[in-house]
Amino acid sequence: MLSEFDLIKRYFAQHNLPDEHLALGIGDDCALLNVTPGMQMAVSSDMLVSGRHFFPDVDPLTLGHKCLAVNLSDLAAMGAKPIGFTLAFALPEADPVWLEKFSQGLFSLADQHHCRLIGGDTTKGPLNICITIFGEQPLATALRRDAAKVGDDIWISGTLGDARLALAGYWRELELSPDDHARAAKRMYLPTPRVALGMALRGIAHAALDISDGLVGDLGHILERSHVGATLAIDELPAGPVLQQFPIALRRQFTLAGGDDYELCFTAPSDRRADVIAAAASANTVITRVGRIDTDPGLRFLDGLGNHVNLSLQSFDHFNTP
Amino acid sequence: MLSEFDLIKRYFAQHNLPDEHLALGIGDDCALLNVTPGMQMAVSSDMLVSGRHFFPDVDPLTLGHKCLAVNLSDLAAMGAKPIGFTLAFALPEADPVWLEKFSQGLFSLADQHHCRLIGGDTTKGPLNICITIFGEQPLATALRRDAAKVGDDIWISGTLGDARLALAGYWRELELSPDDHARAAKRMYLPTPRVALGMALRGIAHAALDISDGLVGDLGHILERSHVGATLAIDELPAGPVLQQFPIALRRQFTLAGGDDYELCFTAPSDRRADVIAAAASANTVITRVGRIDTDPGLRFLDGLGNHVNLSLQSFDHFNTP
Repeated sequence: MLSEFDLIKRYFAQHNLPDEHLALGIGDDCALLNVTPGMQMAVSSDMLVSGRHFFPDVDPLTLGHKCLAVNLSDLAAMGAKPIGFTLAFALPEADPVWLEKFSQGLFSLADQHHCRLIGGDTTKGPLNICITIFGEQPLATALRRDAAKVGDDIWISGTLGDARLALAGYWRELELSPDDHARAAKRMYLPTPRVALGMALRGIAHAALDISDGLVGDLGHILERSHVGATLAIDELPAGPVLQQFPIALRRQFTLAGGDDYELCFTAPSDRRADVIAAAASANTVITRVGRIDTDPGLRFLDGLGNHVNLSLQSFDHFNTP
Repeated sequence: MLSEFDLIKRYFAQHNLPDEHLALGIGDDCALLNVTPGMQMAVSSDMLVSGRHFFPDVDPLTLGHKCLAVNLSDLAAMGAKPIGFTLAFALPEADPVWLEKFSQGLFSLADQHHCRLIGGDTTKGPLNICITIFGEQPLATALRRDAAKVGDDIWISGTLGDARLALAGYWRELELSPDDHARAAKRMYLPTPRVALGMALRGIAHAALDISDGLVGDLGHILERSHVGATLAIDELPAGPVLQQFPIALRRQFTLAGGDDYELCFTAPSDRRADVIAAAASANTVITRVGRIDTDPGLRFLDGLGNHVNLSLQSFDHFNTP
């Protein structure tokens, strides 16, 4: 069986050559990072647990992608440029086939974003993957959750709900055709972190976050921290290509409270719509305007005719779901 | 039951006020850290798994201490000054009593080292704690593993082996009196990270690391990366106050290949012994000179009479032990 050190060397160390940011990589007590003068370091951690965030038999290639994607998505939501990440994981066994695929999925995405593995830890235990990611952010440009202003437009990148639809298929809440299920599952397994969009929105957008637990719950964090309310045009919400075929009640449910979307939700002044659209174009990312920030606290829903709609939705909470 | 957000707020958020390093703390997609000009960022991650790194019924107060201590020890081994850390953990349930004690142990040590919690993640799952720690290091002062030079003295901080002795008591490898076991167990549960010593050794020591898997295995990393060998005076090795009562064979075994010591092992030029001792005194830490770095590859052992001793020892490897 591979030892811990052989394992690290074989699958992970080759992606660890020093560069302008990485003064010292894997193999010492700490990694050493150079931070560009005038930049702050943006830091985020996510832990993914088998049976909770992914199925135990998940393809390790998609798992490697997703672990890093959710962390890149956090950098995107601040407008930070990725630099590197640490990877700590517990594995039931050091399975070379599993590790090779996992590292392929991980480094394929890491290389796209020039994001280097700088260190980590491996241990034996129930499968658990913890990534801490580092990015650089020019001073005073971060897209903070507390920065939404009354009158801002609310925007969404990409589409929502297909990841939740895939889960509904696995859970047998819905019958999906094998083709529909496969296409929806791709959104669940291979989310696209909106890194270029986040960086392009610096100096234009006010508040931003990434939608991981469902739009309503996540937008709620912006409203709470910015001391504002919002109105959403729920029939403007961009449903995923698979979800768009389904009845309106399900579209509303899964776009508003789906989870695992990893799209950006951001607010920007309404007199900067042209700049927002140009930024999205420069990042090659589709965006949709879906509402506005109001003075009145709370969240209101309008349908396609402009009528108020009452909806009862619950966001995902890790300690209040089975 | 407490929700994830209530839980974070109640036990963790109050230690998260912005300071000179922390521009933005818990509650956004990322934390934002200010890095002092002329400094590099030192980063390390450790993951602790229930049943592997600690007993499932461990006192959460000592667990909170130890999780952070092992990470502070990695900063100490580079000579870095602690700034902050992220905490990601999976918990089977959000038990308020457990969380309160865990956070007490964690923050008591964090406050001693002015090390701030800057962010993290909580999720449901088998108990697993992952900390990523950040420190600052003046350029070109890091105590790297590849920096040992032929002729260097080898030094050890504190004492070795009591943590391993405690484990031998739990495993029934040895009979210990309840008092001895309790004193040895304290070394296992409450290791002292040698942060002040590491910082004091900047510019004096060459190579350093912290002893987590046993001296022989860990010193081996310095030898391998520095392309040198070493000779250890094994009867000079400072045994812990409990271990020192035991026969010489056991003292040798547990000081050389114990594990969980979290003492520093470092090398320094022999003409700087006075500076080394002054640095240790300034850090209020006892140190012992235990060997020297040689040209010949490999590790040799001398007994108290200066005779070569053959020993067969194995270091701790996470995937090659039961």
